[in-house]
Amino acid sequence: MGRKKAVALISGGLDSAKEVRCAHAVGKSLGVKEHVTLALDMARIGGSALTEKGANVPDFEGKKGIPATYVPARNMIFLSIAVSLAEARGADAVFIGATAIDYSGYPDCRKEFLESFEKTAALGTKRGIEGKKIRIIAPLVALSKAQIVRKGLALGVDFSKTWSCYRGGKKACGKCASCQYRLKGFYEAGERDPVPYG
Amino acid sequence: MGRKKAVALISGGLDSAKEVRCAHAVGKSLGVKEHVTLALDMARIGGSALTEKGANVPDFEGKKGIPATYVPARNMIFLSIAVSLAEARGADAVFIGATAIDYSGYPDCRKEFLESFEKTAALGTKRGIEGKKIRIIAPLVALSKAQIVRKGLALGVDFSKTWSCYRGGKKACGKCASCQYRLKGFYEAGERDPVPYG
Repeated sequence: MGRKKAVALISGGLDSAKEVRCAHAVGKSLGVKEHVTLALDMARIGGSALTEKGANVPDFEGKKGIPATYVPARNMIFLSIAVSLAEARGADAVFIGATAIDYSGYPDCRKEFLESFEKTAALGTKRGIEGKKIRIIAPLVALSKAQIVRKGLALGVDFSKTWSCYRGGKKACGKCASCQYRLKGFYEAGERDPVPYG
Repeated sequence: MGRKKAVALISGGLDSAKEVRCAHAVGKSLGVKEHVTLALDMARIGGSALTEKGANVPDFEGKKGIPATYVPARNMIFLSIAVSLAEARGADAVFIGATAIDYSGYPDCRKEFLESFEKTAALGTKRGIEGKKIRIIAPLVALSKAQIVRKGLALGVDFSKTWSCYRGGKKACGKCASCQYRLKGFYEAGERDPVPYG
């Protein structure tokens, strides 16, 4: 029996354990067969404090509805491209680091969405209608940030090479929702976050 | 009551009535508020005779399974980007010219897929979970190519500005599946296709 192939979506966050500038190096260390970077100018779409030119990322304001950092249909776009790549390469699964416990309430990080997406992808792909649907696997979806930190450390993840801050400065801001959830995770896990805050 | 907004996916085919080089002009003539072109290098994904570098588009071989021109998860990618844009612009619907009657058997042109996609998008967007889901509308999905030709002519579509050929030469090849279905449509509608074949 041959080894199974999968496509993994990689971002800069705690949950993906990679950022653009080290993704190739980390991928190589894991024996990744191919690293595909596809450019899509999401600023042309806009509609989010993360993608609109000139928009300000708010400080963390607690859990009250979906925040301004929500990017319309972001995971649907990422997953669609990943499923396309998976089918083109003959991969059986797509992995995504979505999590719906300590999170900003983004609808496309929830299990309901991910399960529905898998069904839709089965109906819209050749593999799917041939009975070999591509699985969408979100191993972290039901874990807290503290559990993710612990699991990452147990697996030998070098968290100094991850980046969660929405603001993209030289140091993490520590105040945006993404920093706040990350810090909460390390705090509750009783671990030190190796990323510099300033 | 204000006028409703919608996002329409535009390609070069008979069903979309536009091609890249006239899309802006046609859009303008229809009073389109904004024309967004987003580049995505599908050749990096590959897996199709339409996107692989150096791959040959086959002549029409009749209806026997999904042909080599199938592009993995193509409409899922296009629809995801369109839904993102619709949400960012406050649009209520996304229109797509998919058709599942005289077609190449692409799974992502079928009503089942489009309906499932709409449900998934409702689960994965802010609008959706707020009860204002974005509708996916495929007005041509159940029409034959002949019916599409007749409807287009009745609506004043200038079919000389449409392009269906997969091969992208100066003249349409007349032999690929896309040309064959188009010619069938004009033939069965008793109309002349104004596009040059050579």
